[in-house]
Amino acid sequence: MDMRETQRNPMRDRILSVSAELFARNGYHATGVAELCKAVGLGRGAFYHYIGSKDELLYEISRRQVDEMNAFASRCVGAEGDAESKLRELARALMCNIAQYRAQWTVFFREFDVLRGQQREALLAARDQYESYWRQVFEQGASEGTFRVTDDLQLKGVLGMFNYAYLWLSAGPQAPEEVADVFVDLLLSGLRAN
Amino acid sequence: MDMRETQRNPMRDRILSVSAELFARNGYHATGVAELCKAVGLGRGAFYHYIGSKDELLYEISRRQVDEMNAFASRCVGAEGDAESKLRELARALMCNIAQYRAQWTVFFREFDVLRGQQREALLAARDQYESYWRQVFEQGASEGTFRVTDDLQLKGVLGMFNYAYLWLSAGPQAPEEVADVFVDLLLSGLRAN
Repeated sequence: MDMRETQRNPMRDRILSVSAELFARNGYHATGVAELCKAVGLGRGAFYHYIGSKDELLYEISRRQVDEMNAFASRCVGAEGDAESKLRELARALMCNIAQYRAQWTVFFREFDVLRGQQREALLAARDQYESYWRQVFEQGASEGTFRVTDDLQLKGVLGMFNYAYLWLSAGPQAPEEVADVFVDLLLSGLRAN
Repeated sequence: MDMRETQRNPMRDRILSVSAELFARNGYHATGVAELCKAVGLGRGAFYHYIGSKDELLYEISRRQVDEMNAFASRCVGAEGDAESKLRELARALMCNIAQYRAQWTVFFREFDVLRGQQREALLAARDQYESYWRQVFEQGASEGTFRVTDDLQLKGVLGMFNYAYLWLSAGPQAPEEVADVFVDLLLSGLRAN
């Protein structure tokens, strides 16, 4: 059903968001379709009409945030600007998205291994795509002479700093943009004094 | 049963390690006691004799690695040496532990929310303890004048770099010690050229 892939309607959005909360709270396997139906106030038939299958629901929850980040990163990386300002923008967008959709990111990181076959491949490809935007910014910085030359392992470390926030970032005293700025500053200047 | 808390015997160790693999692969909720019994070749009665309950099993899997890291960090931080060398040691020990016990760390990060009450509190306290060792090293570096003054948010970012490796670190071309060194170098010197 390609319709499901592209169609965004309010009921479908609501199912995705309510399910993400329940999956994040109780785990994907422990959350039954009956419970999901009850939470969104739909019968089983209507529920499956919107969703297709529980696996598809998991895939869609995970996929949406990655797609959103890719859309942002693609614009950001393709625009004018130096590497440092692009890095700041990528970091801020990611932290804001994790703060706003923490349930979705929790589900993504926690339940990814449930996905198989084509869904798994597609999600991995979308993640690789996202990493490649960060890589492009690092490469831009290196060719501008403002960043050191880095490799994929360092990129993993950098992304870890931000992604790990799905475990702790909450509506605390600091806005996600500030958290992003603090991390980028630490990353740019390093821990060493002077 | 305090005996269970302190006693380490081969069968108990085997149950913990086999269960960690199964929980990591299929999720805590989706893994039944019957499946665990079959995997370790024990009847239900004997299994419960060693373990107490499935929750206790989860707690113990998570707790052991944190305790091991705390024991190491306590020695490391209390020993002679400058902040940079201690930071390198902490980082190497953590990456080696994550590489060796990736299933256990996956279970820890993924299933933590299942734990309630005293177990949850005890595990959180043990994690805070671990963070405090890193904080002490940062403070030592600041008072030696070799590190910038940092705060808890920056510490979160640094730990994220390393902890996030539970999602991707595997027996790849790079030894976990090398990964740790690369991350520490990036962290110390920063991304900025010169």
